[in-house]
Amino acid sequence: MTTVAAYAAPAAKAPLERTTIERRAVREFDVLIDIKFAGICHSDIHQVREGWGEAIFPMVPGHEIAGVVSEVGPGVTKYKVGDRVGVGCMVDSCRECDNCKAGLEQYCTGGGMVGTYNALDKDGEPTYGGYAQKIVVDENYVVRIPDGLSLDVAAPLLCAGITTYSPLKHWNAGPGKKVAVLGMGGLGHMAVKLAHALGAEVTVLSQSLRKQDDGLKLGADHYYATSDPKTFQELAGTFDLIVSTVSAPLDFGAFLSLLRTDGALINVGAPEEPISVNLFSLIAGRKTLAGSGIGGIQETQEMLDFCAEHGLGAEIELIAASEINEAYERVLNSDVRYRFVIDTATI
Amino acid sequence: MTTVAAYAAPAAKAPLERTTIERRAVREFDVLIDIKFAGICHSDIHQVREGWGEAIFPMVPGHEIAGVVSEVGPGVTKYKVGDRVGVGCMVDSCRECDNCKAGLEQYCTGGGMVGTYNALDKDGEPTYGGYAQKIVVDENYVVRIPDGLSLDVAAPLLCAGITTYSPLKHWNAGPGKKVAVLGMGGLGHMAVKLAHALGAEVTVLSQSLRKQDDGLKLGADHYYATSDPKTFQELAGTFDLIVSTVSAPLDFGAFLSLLRTDGALINVGAPEEPISVNLFSLIAGRKTLAGSGIGGIQETQEMLDFCAEHGLGAEIELIAASEINEAYERVLNSDVRYRFVIDTATI
Repeated sequence: MTTVAAYAAPAAKAPLERTTIERRAVREFDVLIDIKFAGICHSDIHQVREGWGEAIFPMVPGHEIAGVVSEVGPGVTKYKVGDRVGVGCMVDSCRECDNCKAGLEQYCTGGGMVGTYNALDKDGEPTYGGYAQKIVVDENYVVRIPDGLSLDVAAPLLCAGITTYSPLKHWNAGPGKKVAVLGMGGLGHMAVKLAHALGAEVTVLSQSLRKQDDGLKLGADHYYATSDPKTFQELAGTFDLIVSTVSAPLDFGAFLSLLRTDGALINVGAPEEPISVNLFSLIAGRKTLAGSGIGGIQETQEMLDFCAEHGLGAEIELIAASEINEAYERVLNSDVRYRFVIDTATI
Repeated sequence: MTTVAAYAAPAAKAPLERTTIERRAVREFDVLIDIKFAGICHSDIHQVREGWGEAIFPMVPGHEIAGVVSEVGPGVTKYKVGDRVGVGCMVDSCRECDNCKAGLEQYCTGGGMVGTYNALDKDGEPTYGGYAQKIVVDENYVVRIPDGLSLDVAAPLLCAGITTYSPLKHWNAGPGKKVAVLGMGGLGHMAVKLAHALGAEVTVLSQSLRKQDDGLKLGADHYYATSDPKTFQELAGTFDLIVSTVSAPLDFGAFLSLLRTDGALINVGAPEEPISVNLFSLIAGRKTLAGSGIGGIQETQEMLDFCAEHGLGAEIELIAASEINEAYERVLNSDVRYRFVIDTATI
């Protein structure tokens, strides 16, 4: 066991504070990672505040982890000391179900993936995330960060990047396709970069035009305000694919009307409450409403390699650990361009 | 103009009664059809009762039409007098939009398809459907009924058949696929026959086991009652595809839980009111909720050829025109096995 400095919420809705946690001794297939940077994801806040149901406390959030390998177990073959690596939303899964075997560990049906934090591992021990100085993870749930990517801008790719890359690939975003990104936040700004790099024609649908300059700079071809009713007239029947990164309630009928025949609206963000939709808006035009959750380990590696090849990192605001609680408030106010990343040296 | 005997609803919610209507003179590309049989579709009742919004009266319902060509215009090349033909839910569309050109006339974006009844044609005249002795239709919106199919059991294929065939094909029902059919009525019983003939493993999900014997006889491999909570435990994560033919409100979360990863729940029936669904039930397992509306003209022909090849007609109760109002009540009570078909000689 190793004692490690971390930031944790001692109880639901409590502010995060400095503490120490124990990391397990490195086992045969484990990698010990010196965490350098950890992104702040909106879902960290959901879980600290028990918005998604009862949670495990103390909670060390963080599933956008970038660091350097500092020790490996005797059976480890994929990584060596000094390698630059990342850890995303999961640290284990059953490894035996069809989904695990197909590289869809995020949809593991053999008990479900083991979350990087706010979960119990296979020994029944609570997992603790990336707001910490070190983490121990089985090598099969670690990915390599290519040399072309700085660790700070790479960290958010482990959730915001893969969560948007996976549906863009699965629903064939690419040349000749019109893709809309709904919401211009942590996930949305990565969706814009990725869809553009994949060759699609990209439109941002954001509440206002406040971030329009950024959106166009990051690769969007068009930028519309959803607060303007004319947007829905002008863009009716336009898109092959809409990726919604929004977790606020939406008028789904209005957004489905922006799809072409056979178009798909994919939700990677989700309101806590059920949504309401008239099925006729799916029947007219054979439209799809679907969801997508992060991505598998192999696809996460593919995404990182793609980002390195295209020079894509997240747009970040680097903060000290002491600023986490303030950052949470700013995330809730959509006041971040576009991802807070904690410099874990400050813990 | 030709005066034709028909059954019409004179006003919203009024009983249907015998009347006469005028059919247009046969034009260059028109086919005059002596209607032999017309199916009664649940949507006839929706429209007569204005459940889907304001409608045009008097209304002659009927979009499951089977008959024999009795006259053709001088430009007609596809049909000749004596041919056995069918007409489904549409009698025209713009013919110029991408969807019309792609054989997806049902999703015409150039003003929308012209419904077989309760619509205005391109001259602004109201269209009248199949509860009549004759109909005049442009040859491009007429399909051929293969010799192997009797006209009475073929009539319901023009809506119930194509509405279920199209999504089964589009979402790849076939060997190795587990398909559930939700609802064992006019559409559902055709979905069972078609999915079975396509080679899928077919499960019926019906409120009760009342029609189990029929379901198994028509090609279902399994039959479950949705009123039994054990059904949802036993079948969790089972299906690649669920085709819902139900227009009553459903617990969509429960039915989505029956899908495998990447599974799809396709709605061909739809409640009049918006439905409620938690998006997490789509995100967990990358699931699709979609809709599908009838099928294009070419696909309708393909479906009829497929049905003839596999000896598939609808299961029908043949009625006289004087029994239409009583039949409507029985449809509303789910008391029909499985489609009422009007013998139009009785009008």
